[in-house]
Amino acid sequence: MKALRLSTLLLALLAGASSAADSPARPGASSQDTWRDVSADNLVLISTRYGTVAVELAPDFAPNHVARMRKLLRSHFYDGRTFYRVIDGFVAQGGADEDKSATPDAPVNAQILKDWPPLKAEFDATLAAGDVFAPLGNADPFAPEVGFIDGYPVGRDPKDGKSWIIQCPGVFAFARDNDENTATTEFYIVIGQAPRRLDRNLTAFGRVISGMQLVQKLNRGDEQVDAGVIGDVSMRDPIIRMSLASELPEKDRPHYQVMRTDSPTFAGMLAQRRHPPPEFYHRPPSPNLDICGVPLPVRLRP
Amino acid sequence: MKALRLSTLLLALLAGASSAADSPARPGASSQDTWRDVSADNLVLISTRYGTVAVELAPDFAPNHVARMRKLLRSHFYDGRTFYRVIDGFVAQGGADEDKSATPDAPVNAQILKDWPPLKAEFDATLAAGDVFAPLGNADPFAPEVGFIDGYPVGRDPKDGKSWIIQCPGVFAFARDNDENTATTEFYIVIGQAPRRLDRNLTAFGRVISGMQLVQKLNRGDEQVDAGVIGDVSMRDPIIRMSLASELPEKDRPHYQVMRTDSPTFAGMLAQRRHPPPEFYHRPPSPNLDICGVPLPVRLRP
Repeated sequence: MKALRLSTLLLALLAGASSAADSPARPGASSQDTWRDVSADNLVLISTRYGTVAVELAPDFAPNHVARMRKLLRSHFYDGRTFYRVIDGFVAQGGADEDKSATPDAPVNAQILKDWPPLKAEFDATLAAGDVFAPLGNADPFAPEVGFIDGYPVGRDPKDGKSWIIQCPGVFAFARDNDENTATTEFYIVIGQAPRRLDRNLTAFGRVISGMQLVQKLNRGDEQVDAGVIGDVSMRDPIIRMSLASELPEKDRPHYQVMRTDSPTFAGMLAQRRHPPPEFYHRPPSPNLDICGVPLPVRLRP
Repeated sequence: MKALRLSTLLLALLAGASSAADSPARPGASSQDTWRDVSADNLVLISTRYGTVAVELAPDFAPNHVARMRKLLRSHFYDGRTFYRVIDGFVAQGGADEDKSATPDAPVNAQILKDWPPLKAEFDATLAAGDVFAPLGNADPFAPEVGFIDGYPVGRDPKDGKSWIIQCPGVFAFARDNDENTATTEFYIVIGQAPRRLDRNLTAFGRVISGMQLVQKLNRGDEQVDAGVIGDVSMRDPIIRMSLASELPEKDRPHYQVMRTDSPTFAGMLAQRRHPPPEFYHRPPSPNLDICGVPLPVRLRP
């Protein structure tokens, strides 16, 4: 009897980068060539009822927003707050939700704004010389150039030399009001098809490196009502704790590694995705890749 | 005191189509011009522990796969089975998971294959004259032409006149083995950034019209282990019931309507997304849209 495992190969080929990731392309290449340690100062751990989500911060792209986030985490600002505005296919927003908690008698808003004044936007950055941009290898409908820097999906404009993190699923950013320079404490995680119009219009400064499947479990609001804010407060998923790993005892810190996107291993993975095996793909797909559809491998340090 | 509601406008503008959807673009246009009723014969209801997911079937694109699905539903094939292979950012696959349940002594596989023989692939279709293709209005990196037909995101090739449903988030399709003509009973729902390489390589024949946020709650497998199959059977989310609405008593049928993608209202929504308001978007985004990033409005019949 032939057991039929439907689409096993499909999933094996598409879903992960494990085989490429585990076998360096260059004989003799050390694991240091392929993997980069995530610094504890850049590692955010969000404890939810579903488990812990890990976010890596990207200070090169938005130094002041990263500094603000570290300061918020050191003061345990988010502990006990919620994901209060979660829109399926778009973003999960967490923080203080100032409107709901503010009343004339308890103006928590005013206090938050005083403690955490609005930041100047860091929508894009002129990176220091020596950054390693690994081009995706095909055109993108939304940016002059796209590729990867340090494991982040990045857009670049050769005209002004600016780079920015693209708003792919998993990207971590500060929300803001209409004015550009109004980010204070509220953050969001992209949870749906990349909302590329947000590129360079909001400050993205990190990405989820573990636990996106937990973020996806968060209760949603109704996008047609109050812009997705979850009206029934009891339905908002709590942020039980949100910590900077470097503030934790050494024994409590997970040690993540992200694949170096300038490594031959990553280049090999891209090539494999561009030309997937004909055994399954009887019609060769377009050789174009979607910058937000490329998995960025992460592992715990062996 | 100015209460700061961070990014409310952002979310209101981006997330939904409610304002456009509720105000027809042509004065005097009746609601019949904007909304299309979903036929009970094309409506699949998947009951999960998180709530009910609704899928609309698209017989024009894959008549034999739709006929198979209706037959499977009438025989209650899926009731009590599971979502057994769920890969975050990719697909949620449900059905019998033949490999796990098959042993030489209990060859459920063989019986399933006998009862539900492999189908000839319907990766694309020559639609009948009169289909209304509403072009997206910009180029796509993966298909010669993209647009919308009957509320589905569709690719077209003018060279051979074929059309196909694009594998956007929420699209419903049959899994298969390496051979093209091996779909039998296993289905999947796309849950991540659109895996466009699957376009025209698998048979897509519907889309989720309600409850994607419930699909997102499904427990995931580990993509690095057994191609995402959830090894601990107790962690697989059950398909409690999976029914064709036309088989249910009238009182138990929800009545959905999807926005006509050939309506002026939808065209207005597209234009609004292409040029979002400068009050928030201080840097005008690329006027290009992602075919999989356009919301396809659905409502319950008023």
